[in-house]
Amino acid sequence: MDKIIICPDSFKGSMSSTTVCSIIEKKAKYYFEEAEIVTLPIADGGEGTVDVLLTSVGGEKVYATCSGPNFETIETYYGALDNKIAVIELASCSGLTLIKGEKDPSLTTTYGVGQLILDAAKKGFKEIIVALGGSATNDGGSGAASAVGIKFLNKEGKSFIPTGKTLREVKSIDFSDKNPLLDGIKVTTMCDVANPLLGENGASKVYSPQKGATPDMVELLEEGMRSYAEVVESSLKEEFKEIKGVGAAGGMGFGMVAFFNSTLEKGIDVVLDAYDFENHLKGASFVITGEGKFDNQSLEGKAVMGISRRSKEANVKVIAIVGDIGPNIEEAYQQGLSAIFSINRVAQDFEKVAHRSKEDLELTVDNLFRFLKELAL
Amino acid sequence: MDKIIICPDSFKGSMSSTTVCSIIEKKAKYYFEEAEIVTLPIADGGEGTVDVLLTSVGGEKVYATCSGPNFETIETYYGALDNKIAVIELASCSGLTLIKGEKDPSLTTTYGVGQLILDAAKKGFKEIIVALGGSATNDGGSGAASAVGIKFLNKEGKSFIPTGKTLREVKSIDFSDKNPLLDGIKVTTMCDVANPLLGENGASKVYSPQKGATPDMVELLEEGMRSYAEVVESSLKEEFKEIKGVGAAGGMGFGMVAFFNSTLEKGIDVVLDAYDFENHLKGASFVITGEGKFDNQSLEGKAVMGISRRSKEANVKVIAIVGDIGPNIEEAYQQGLSAIFSINRVAQDFEKVAHRSKEDLELTVDNLFRFLKELAL
Repeated sequence: MDKIIICPDSFKGSMSSTTVCSIIEKKAKYYFEEAEIVTLPIADGGEGTVDVLLTSVGGEKVYATCSGPNFETIETYYGALDNKIAVIELASCSGLTLIKGEKDPSLTTTYGVGQLILDAAKKGFKEIIVALGGSATNDGGSGAASAVGIKFLNKEGKSFIPTGKTLREVKSIDFSDKNPLLDGIKVTTMCDVANPLLGENGASKVYSPQKGATPDMVELLEEGMRSYAEVVESSLKEEFKEIKGVGAAGGMGFGMVAFFNSTLEKGIDVVLDAYDFENHLKGASFVITGEGKFDNQSLEGKAVMGISRRSKEANVKVIAIVGDIGPNIEEAYQQGLSAIFSINRVAQDFEKVAHRSKEDLELTVDNLFRFLKELAL
Repeated sequence: MDKIIICPDSFKGSMSSTTVCSIIEKKAKYYFEEAEIVTLPIADGGEGTVDVLLTSVGGEKVYATCSGPNFETIETYYGALDNKIAVIELASCSGLTLIKGEKDPSLTTTYGVGQLILDAAKKGFKEIIVALGGSATNDGGSGAASAVGIKFLNKEGKSFIPTGKTLREVKSIDFSDKNPLLDGIKVTTMCDVANPLLGENGASKVYSPQKGATPDMVELLEEGMRSYAEVVESSLKEEFKEIKGVGAAGGMGFGMVAFFNSTLEKGIDVVLDAYDFENHLKGASFVITGEGKFDNQSLEGKAVMGISRRSKEANVKVIAIVGDIGPNIEEAYQQGLSAIFSINRVAQDFEKVAHRSKEDLELTVDNLFRFLKELAL
């Protein structure tokens, strides 16, 4: 055993990816003393993404003052990775957990995200990752655009910063004051949903209710977003609203593509690129990954499959340790997964066993390593 | 991979040992085409013991007419194994499942067991195994003894066949007509409980309620058993009532020791001896065993640990695939178990997942073999 790569996602509802990582690492060190152990906990684009990447890649927090979701002034930070990439979490300045009092996605803004992007650009970062998870907004990214100098004008030609409620008032857009510092910067957006901007599967109808929208408000937000999208697309003479994922984070996906020239990429691929994963794979004996629930949905770009596909290309075997294993997962083997194991050790409902997830993970890993060492090496 | 030995116990409540065996066998043949596969489903002394042994060792059913638990005439069978061992299930003639109508352990008899033992002796078997599981009786083995010619006499010196209710009437015992065919026959009793004959942990108090005894009846049975044991022990000038396991099957353990010169042995050891397990272990690459629930109790002589201890002596590695894994099982590794895995793949209560135990076992075995083959061979 020369080198083991440990790169699990979080087990949602019970363990963070760093916790899972450290439990597996401890057992790997115990059973394979001589092996090089590489730990790369996976960030999934939600809250904690910056912290995980800072720990794994190395780097420091950059503290900044910016707008919160309701235009209040907040202190937050983004990540300045040692590999010269800046990582910004939308949730850190426009997140649902920052909302005090009643939730109302017609009033919230992504303005802070634009401020942080600009701050990173000013500090010289040429590569910026934006993670969209946990948004409180439905502003189509108009707030973030405003923060970098793009002006949204109403019918009187007056500039204003739109929110979900006032998107319909946008009649034209003035790009002339867009900050030139953004030119030539590569912006990548982590986005694991495939929603278009509008319609039944769009930003407003699917996600705004969980951000506090009433049924009437959902209709208003949808109408506003539709009107706004038409103005944006006619201004830029390009269509964005059907691109997969632009409906993420209340249309922030749309804004990132339209105003920041960003690509929308699967979170796992963005993170693995940031980790220079292919480089780590060189000489690896095997990879251990995992996530809370592995099912058909996991075949579409979640952590385990993203890691399996890339490892397969490098001819490195992958095993996954997960919470639950759903039905019909055989396809995963073709895509590079060697084997998958559940940490469930008794037939009991999740609420009864969640408290001892760490112990159950430890038992499962322990036995897999015992098995490997005793029967195989 | 030269040779794989598959020897699981049943998964109580969901799969028989032969079912478990065939699922593992199918996967072993798929992944290790070139290996010799030996299947030895474990019989645990309960119902099905004869059938399992007949299938695994080879042999035939010997049909016989004998007494049922209420002295009715029944047709049943015992096993005549190809290795010249006869195997008799107490449950086949004195079992709880044979009781029609109200259960009453004060009236039931082990007479049929004695008849089957005698039948096997008449057919020339020199080695007889008796499995005690599933009894409806509480007669201290007096019925079985009566069937082979031992006479129980009341205070008038009149011979009668005692049951639980009339054990107290036994005042003396006449061995003069005991059938000489039994001389020199080795009788082994499968017994996985450690209960003494009498007292709080004895046959009557622990087991008779589940056979239909009311609280008053339990007291009567206990008193009768105590009186009977004194007569037996004084007649034979030997003490048996504190031997571990004599309280099994309503005191049938006591009767087997006292009247049939039997040893009481752990079921798993009796079965492994019948299988000539040590011979199979020669040249084995590894052993796969399993059972429904592995816990601290399993450390005391149930299938997985019995198999692990013997395999360890032969320096063959053992892995176990089980339903549930209980807490604090680390001691098992010292006793020879290499690794243990649960078939639970989702955090759900047993009643929700029991219906798909076969599928979940198959998934688990499939992944273990994939793991072994892809990472190790």
